[in-house]
Order: sequence, then C-alpha cells, then structure tokens
Amino acid sequence: MFKAIVSAETLSSALDSVSVLVEECKIHLEEDGLRIRAVDPANVGMVDLSLEADAFESYEADGGLIGVDLSRLEDIAGMAESGQLVQLELDEETRKLHAQIEGLEYTLALIDPDSIRQEPDIPDLDLPARVVLEGKDVNRAVTAADMVSDHIALGVDEAEEYFYVDAEGDTDDVHLELTADELIDLEVGSAHSLFSLDYLKDMNKAIPRDAEVAADLGEEFPIKMYFGFAEGQGQVTYMLAPRIQSD
Amino acid sequence: MFKAIVSAETLSSALDSVSVLVEECKIHLEEDGLRIRAVDPANVGMVDLSLEADAFESYEADGGLIGVDLSRLEDIAGMAESGQLVQLELDEETRKLHAQIEGLEYTLALIDPDSIRQEPDIPDLDLPARVVLEGKDVNRAVTAADMVSDHIALGVDEAEEYFYVDAEGDTDDVHLELTADELIDLEVGSAHSLFSLDYLKDMNKAIPRDAEVAADLGEEFPIKMYFGFAEGQGQVTYMLAPRIQSD
Amino acid sequence: MFKAIVSAETLSSALDSVSVLVEECKIHLEEDGLRIRAVDPANVGMVDLSLEADAFESYEADGGLIGVDLSRLEDIAGMAESGQLVQLELDEETRKLHAQIEGLEYTLALIDPDSIRQEPDIPDLDLPARVVLEGKDVNRAVTAADMVSDHIALGVDEAEEYFYVDAEGDTDDVHLELTADELIDLEVGSAHSLFSLDYLKDMNKAIPRDAEVAADLGEEFPIKMYFGFAEGQGQVTYMLAPRIQSD
Repeated sequence: MFKAIVSAETLSSALDSVSVLVEECKIHLEEDGLRIRAVDPANVGMVDLSLEADAFESYEADGGLIGVDLSRLEDIAGMAESGQLVQLELDEETRKLHAQIEGLEYTLALIDPDSIRQEPDIPDLDLPARVVLEGKDVNRAVTAADMVSDHIALGVDEAEEYFYVDAEGDTDDVHLELTADELIDLEVGSAHSLFSLDYLKDMNKAIPRDAEVAADLGEEFPIKMYFGFAEGQGQVTYMLAPRIQSD
Repeated sequence: MFKAIVSAETLSSALDSVSVLVEECKIHLEEDGLRIRAVDPANVGMVDLSLEADAFESYEADGGLIGVDLSRLEDIAGMAESGQLVQLELDEETRKLHAQIEGLEYTLALIDPDSIRQEPDIPDLDLPARVVLEGKDVNRAVTAADMVSDHIALGVDEAEEYFYVDAEGDTDDVHLELTADELIDLEVGSAHSLFSLDYLKDMNKAIPRDAEVAADLGEEFPIKMYFGFAEGQGQVTYMLAPRIQSD
Repeated sequence: MFKAIVSAETLSSALDSVSVLVEECKIHLEEDGLRIRAVDPANVGMVDLSLEADAFESYEADGGLIGVDLSRLEDIAGMAESGQLVQLELDEETRKLHAQIEGLEYTLALIDPDSIRQEPDIPDLDLPARVVLEGKDVNRAVTAADMVSDHIALGVDEAEEYFYVDAEGDTDDVHLELTADELIDLEVGSAHSLFSLDYLKDMNKAIPRDAEVAADLGEEFPIKMYFGFAEGQGQVTYMLAPRIQSD
C-alpha cells in the first residue's frame, strides 16, 4: 500500500538528486518515508536519498518496493505548476503508479525492481577532514575547474588551514582557496584527492545554490557530500570514488 | 486598394493562427476586414480566420486578394517593439506589399494567389456536444497527452456529465476529466473522437492561454474549435478531422 | 610590470568589442591604459580600442605587450557575478596572466605576440558625412537588413538631408530613413557605400543599445564608427571596408 500527496517541488528535488546518476531506480516505500539508493553504471558515483513522511502533505506506506523510470516521473512532476500538489497511489494489482495533479491523471507503468542494477552498500568511511560550504561555492569551483580540465583536486592545507580546489589544464590552471572564515565550517585533516569533473558536475546540478553542503575528504579517498532539501525533511548523500593520481 | 494600420501584436496573432498549418496563404482584403481560409497539405486541419476592420487603427480595402509567405510577414511584424504600429499598403502595379514600422520600410514581394493551394470549404457540421474551456486547459491536456502518445481521444461522458481527454501510450496513460464546474460551459451530447496530437499541438500554439475556447465534438467526427483574439475583433475557427479509431 | 583591478563588466565590454573580429589579439599595457588594435583575417574589419587607466579600480603598467586568446579571457570575466572585481597580474617570468575573482585564481597561458597577426594601421580618412545615432537604431537597421540580404547600403541624401539604410534582397527590400530630427546629429555630405552585413552584424553585437554611435561615411569609402563604454573611459573605433557596388 502506498498513497501520498506531495508538493511537485519536493518531488522534483528528490528525483533530480538521483537522476543525475542513473536513469532507473528502486524506491523503498517505508513507513516513515521514501528511501532511494543507487550507483552509476561505472560504479564511481553513489547516491543515498531519504525523504521523510513529514515532507509530504499526507503519506501512507507499508514497506513496498517499486522500480521507476526517473525521467518519466520527473516529467509528471514537471507538469505541475508552482505550488501544485501531486497525488501518488500505487495499484498493487496492475503494478502501476497513479499520479494526479488537479484532475489530470497519469498512469505510470512501473519497472520490475529485479531488472534494475543492485543497490550499493555505501561504505562507512572514517574521513579525516570536513568542509561545510554553500551550494553556490560548490558551483563556482566546479564551473571554474571545468574551464580548464576534466578532473579536479580537492584538499585541505593542514598547516595554513584552508580548503582548496585545483584544476590543471594543458595550458591554464584554476585554483581556489577558502579559509575557515569563508566556509561555514572546516575540520582540518589530511586530505587531497583527485576526482572526475563529469561526476561532480552532475552532482552539482542537483545541489541547491543555497544549500549547506558538508563534504568529508581524505588522502586519495572518496568524497562524501551531504545536503538537505524540502526544509531539511529530505537528505541526500553523494559518494564519489577518487581517480588515481598521476604524477 | 489596400491600406491599413494595425498593432504589431494583432497582426502577429492573426498570422500565427494560420502559419501553424500552412506556409503560404491567400488573404482576402474585404471591405469590412481581412479573411483567411487554409487547409494543411494533408487535408486534415483547416483554419478560418477573420479580422474585422475595427481591429485596425485605420483600414481601407475594396475586395482584393493577395498571396503571402506567412513567415516573412511574421518576421516583419516581429521587428516591431511592443506597442508599435505596422502600416501596410498594397502597390497594385508592382504587386508588392509595403510595410512600415516607425520609418523602417519593408517591401514584400507577394505570391501569385493561383499558385497557392485552394481554400477549403469548411463544412457546416451538426455536432452534438460543446465544451467551453480556457486556453490554458487546452494546453494542459495537449502537453500531458504528448508525454505518452501521438494521438488523443476527446469526448463527453453523457451519464456523468463531464468532458474527458484520454491518451494511451505503450506503457503509460494520461486521463483528464473536467466537469461542468471546472469548465466555462458544457453542452452534453454523444461525443468521442480520436485526433492526431501533432495537429492539436500546432493549433494549441496559436491559442492564447487566457482565451475562451469553444470546442464542438461528435462521435467519430471532426472537432471544431473557436476562439477570439484582438479583444474579440479577430475570430479563429479550427477544424480537425478525426483519426480512424482502432480497437 | 602589469597589475590591475577592474570590474568584470568593463573587462567584458572591452574584450567583446575585439572578439567579434578576431580570436587572438595583442594587448598593449601602456602606462595610461590598455590599447588593442586588430584586423580580421580578410582585412575587411578593423578595431582600435583604448581603455583608460581611470576605468580601473587600480592600474599599474609600464608599457609591456601580451598576446591573449580572447575567448579564454572572456570566460574568466564571465565567471564573475555582477559587480565583482577581477584582479589581473602579469608574471613576467612565466609569461602567464593571473586573474583573481574573490579568492578564485585563474592562471592563463599567454600567446607569443609575434605569432599573432600584425596590428593594422587604421588610416586617417577625410569622410564627408557624419551620422550620430543610438546603438538601438544601429541594431534596428542591421536586423531588418539581415531579413532580406547579405549586404547593406548606407548613405546620406544631401538634398533632403537624411541618413538612409538600403538592403535589396532577391524578392524583398528594406529601407530606413532617419532625418536630423530622428538622429542625435547629422553632418550632411556626399555618402553612399555598400557593406557586408556579416561584419556589421558582428560589430553591432558589441555596440551597447544605449550607446551614442558616431559614423563617418563617404562615397564608396570605408565606414568608421566610434562609441564609448565604461562611462566614456573606454573608446572603440571600428572601420569597415566597403564592398564593390555592382549595378
């Protein structure tokens, strides 16, 4: 059983966070909210999303699992005008999801969850450095790095106590330093890793400019990024594997 | 003789209503206003447009006929800024149309009307049902149907007294019901017909979101749609032939 | 030595004026400001730009010369948000230009000035007619002419005392007349020349709509256009060679 009413904006935010990595996903319809975990085909980027029942106007679920084509569900949410609500109801028998927006009913065929790539285990890593910054600074760093390179180094200078972004192109370089003063928070630790810019650009698309993003970093280790949406009742964790550093 | 001054907005609205179906058309320069009738190359969609002399700042004509390339005339109207007037004057001798916007003069070569597809007779049909709705609801129905299918069924439920839109795709369906309360007007009658979405999408482009659109429907019959523009001094009738229903 | 701070808007305006004609250019870092002169590969359009030291927040230079890829430098200026400042500093040893915007540092590899096309001598012509008009009227004339032709005639009617624009297409024509009343200023003289619209369209892109543009014209002679930017502390001169008139 699944029956819920949610603002189109909240639904879109949730789906967009996942669709930057995968086209289809499994959605766990837990009693206390939705949960999605997915990994991209290359096993490089992972997402773990939860949207609490409180983020919905009304929410009833008892632990089911559905498979969805994300772009179709995003199209449905996109049909709503600003402020409109989307009613969702699962038809267990036909395995279809009914979505209603002000009298308009969309019947979405679900995908067999077994045909969707297995959900990843997102490892519990002990990362020594933590940087907390605004979404717009993530965007700034990623956009600038993209002008010169296809990879990006993120790290923390322990002696000088700042977070840095480095992108080295064939001719030009980009460098950004943010001190504790310019960050929301900085926990200094040994951290320097190189990442594929393609993945960070995709993840950046889903990060609201005004979100508070926490990033955990280590020495040649994955980055983990956390941010909230829907007034904190939705949470996203991204994990991105590092590229091998070449000297 | 033809000499007229009209707001660029009114001229654009008139031309856009026709150009969604055809590239060239004949324009009848009647004493009491302009009249255009055209049918698309496949003989599926027809338009009948009239723009009364009162819709113009000034208007003089004595029954001539010209052939025009619609996109060129639309480009001319598009050069005007909001609120600017377009002066039109036919040079009978050279068969050119002079268009003037604030000192800028555009001389448009006309097309021999005989080289343009013959104007259709728009049949007088006795359609049993009438639905009157806002342009934005037409847009909503067409946009939603387009997400799942390339055709759309429109009909009236006589027992329950509502207008409905149905689009059935390979996997997903869209359904919209509008009761008399949600419509501007509903005259219940036996009506259910299937239409090509391509044509309805084109016609929808020309329908102002805030227009009052009257649609006459029957059982496997064409749809006729009527709406006004230029504060009611312009009228458009669209007729669209049904597709054969397959079961 | 070169070290300067300038608003991103002023820097962008300067670069855009040159990049409509060439991809790379030499920049003279004079004591009293920047100076750029360039000619397009076909030797048809030339630009002479100066940006006074007063247009900068701070400016120090001692007469150096650098070669730059304009699109890269434009990208850097484009990273700044409205109102932000760009700090520029030349590293003489590495021949790199450091650009900084709020903590973000971009290191731009310079181009050997000797590898860039030679700077043109912009001839001192004695042109008999001068037209002063708003940038938006330049835009209007160029946009309208572009609808019918790929060249444009500009001239002055000495008897009737007006400036005119003529574009003759295969079927349609565009004609614009601006009298002294409709211009900011008009110095009547013998003038009629034909120009390639491609070049004028490019130059038009860099002319602010609200700029006062002075154009000097002659009989089958080049046109020279002058306009200011950065509150008059930047000046651009464009010169465009005429096309041979065919009768």
